Amino acid sequence: MVKEAADDSEICCPSRLVLDRIGDKWSVLIVLNLGDGPKRFSELREVLHHVTPKVLTYTLRGMERDGLLTRTVFAEVPPRVEYELTPLGHSLRPVMEPITTWAEEHVDEVLSLRKAHDTRSADEFAG
Amino acid sequence: MVKEAADDSEICCPSRLVLDRIGDKWSVLIVLNLGDGPKRFSELREVLHHVTPKVLTYTLRGMERDGLLTRTVFAEVPPRVEYELTPLGHSLRPVMEPITTWAEEHVDEVLSLRKAHDTRSADEFAG
Repeated sequence: MVKEAADDSEICCPSRLVLDRIGDKWSVLIVLNLGDGPKRFSELREVLHHVTPKVLTYTLRGMERDGLLTRTVFAEVPPRVEYELTPLGHSLRPVMEPITTWAEEHVDEVLSLRKAHDTRSADEFAG
Repeated sequence: MVKEAADDSEICCPSRLVLDRIGDKWSVLIVLNLGDGPKRFSELREVLHHVTPKVLTYTLRGMERDGLLTRTVFAEVPPRVEYELTPLGHSLRPVMEPITTWAEEHVDEVLSLRKAHDTRSADEFAG
């Protein structure tokens, strides 16, 4: 049953392919950080703490492929490369913003529940 | 510069820890699929096409740890295990819904841009 459902998923749910792209933390943060204007790779790395160059490159390429942003190379020395949201990418901003707002509003509650859960699990293990 | 920013990220951005949890495709889909009531593991696997049991288990445990859902074991033969959103988990529904709506509304546009990009890249490679 599960196998059958998995087999036809690309046919029944093409929007899942799009969710693969936009449903990840780095895409959310890139859309929000490019909201005010274009940025260079090094600037994105700086605001997206903890992202590795490899993951950032992979995510930016995927977003460019899907028409969410453009990559422009300026013929300077050294060459300047800028990433900028397309109108399609901009249309994701109101979709992404509530996610980070929720995270900011509920961070204390979640971290406190997480701590309580870990204490309970440790007690169960010890008991 | 980038390194320094990465080092202090846990201090400056605890909400990033929460985004780690809610900012992934499977969490989005689990929240939306549990919106109408509790479901068993096998039911979730069936609606979340392509999820592996390992990834589903990992995601559900993380969401339980963060207080987004509960896991209840019913003493039946065979034992029944149900996953249900907590009020905190339910508060994520209005945040997650626009993501899948956007994906459904823009799937044709994104897939067409993706195809055009791939054709262009193949031409550049051939040229």
